[in-house]
Amino acid sequence: MPARLKLILAYDGTAFAGWQSQSHHRTVQDRLEQALRQISGEKSSVHGAGRTDAGVHALGQCAHVDVPDRRLSANQWQRALNANLPATIRILSANYVSPSFHARYSAKAKIYRYRIWNAPVMPPLEVNRSWHILKKLEPSKMENTIRLFCGEHDFRAFAANRGKAEENTVRTIHSGRIIGRGRLVVVEWDGNGFLYKMVRLMVGALVNVALGKLTAAAVECALDSGEPAGSRVVAPAEGLYLVRVRY
Amino acid sequence: MPARLKLILAYDGTAFAGWQSQSHHRTVQDRLEQALRQISGEKSSVHGAGRTDAGVHALGQCAHVDVPDRRLSANQWQRALNANLPATIRILSANYVSPSFHARYSAKAKIYRYRIWNAPVMPPLEVNRSWHILKKLEPSKMENTIRLFCGEHDFRAFAANRGKAEENTVRTIHSGRIIGRGRLVVVEWDGNGFLYKMVRLMVGALVNVALGKLTAAAVECALDSGEPAGSRVVAPAEGLYLVRVRY
Repeated sequence: MPARLKLILAYDGTAFAGWQSQSHHRTVQDRLEQALRQISGEKSSVHGAGRTDAGVHALGQCAHVDVPDRRLSANQWQRALNANLPATIRILSANYVSPSFHARYSAKAKIYRYRIWNAPVMPPLEVNRSWHILKKLEPSKMENTIRLFCGEHDFRAFAANRGKAEENTVRTIHSGRIIGRGRLVVVEWDGNGFLYKMVRLMVGALVNVALGKLTAAAVECALDSGEPAGSRVVAPAEGLYLVRVRY
Repeated sequence: MPARLKLILAYDGTAFAGWQSQSHHRTVQDRLEQALRQISGEKSSVHGAGRTDAGVHALGQCAHVDVPDRRLSANQWQRALNANLPATIRILSANYVSPSFHARYSAKAKIYRYRIWNAPVMPPLEVNRSWHILKKLEPSKMENTIRLFCGEHDFRAFAANRGKAEENTVRTIHSGRIIGRGRLVVVEWDGNGFLYKMVRLMVGALVNVALGKLTAAAVECALDSGEPAGSRVVAPAEGLYLVRVRY
């Protein structure tokens, strides 16, 4: 009898063309499905909590998959998967769950972190892991702007495709915090869902405000009207980390 | 008139075949000399404080080089070099110094850090940046052993080539500390000099003691006699960081 496995996994986004399966197979989902097939001999489809773009890292992505039977314990699955995956993807935990659990639909909230290196010179070990901004960001301006995003809003102006016609673009951000200071600025977002490239567009706006290129009032207006505030900046993928999915 | 530049630089060791110039030119020294030539049009030889092996990282390597003249300020040199180097090598500072300064011979001490990930699963973002040890290390055993290395000793038993016949293998370790705990164990060494692979051999011994494969008494005996204690373990290059050179 098939059984559902819940997987928590981490990956270095630099090594993959994003989460979502593609014909060239260089994605996290493809590598996971390959490893599952190597172990069970059968094809299984992996369902992730969210698609991360190429270059985006995960510290705690969540996925579920139906495996053919329970011959292997969840711990054995974890070990077998890690043995069949590259070191740049690691299964942090595996558990059998009820078939009613769905990695995407059961998710209550997601936590993302965005890492900015704010100094004239970027350390080599930060390459591919943070966004390098040379000009000093004003922390108070970031603090004042991040508050505007919190709560329930129509985030249409902060979606890459500006929301498909039929899509509900209302989301709730439970909290947005600047948790790093000085040269390392870390922005953490906790929300019930995020539209395509929404975190990167919000971070782009925060940075534009902190550099004096955009006003907080313009951000507020974009949130109210659904119309983007001037030219939008998408913060680069490599600074973004999916930290955790809450169920 | 030629002028001497002192450079402090950082690099991601994963990207290079070590510090020391080689015929294939994929070394940090080669890349630096290339960049210098691109800027000044002349060939200059870079002298590093110490040679780091392939895979070893630097947070604060030091080097000096004689440039043809003072037409560029030290800050201009820093910017020009960074513009001509890959992002995996960064000049953190540049200063004109007296021609009596020598990156290697003037060095009073070097500080190295060694990073161990001590848990069953290694996070993807630690790949190439720390040594993964699955079995629990006993911190008290490491503490007790690291003390044995401190002070002045003949470190012949902890040199890769066991010291060339004519080489003075006496060094002084000013301090050895375990500064990380739990899953991330960081060992920091401050000494007046280190023999070839000495840090990695000392860390290998520390780990062997912490895993119960070697006794602290055997380490003491190796230091006294100059004869290696059983089979030696060289900790992998990727966990090692040259933190700083003191003058």
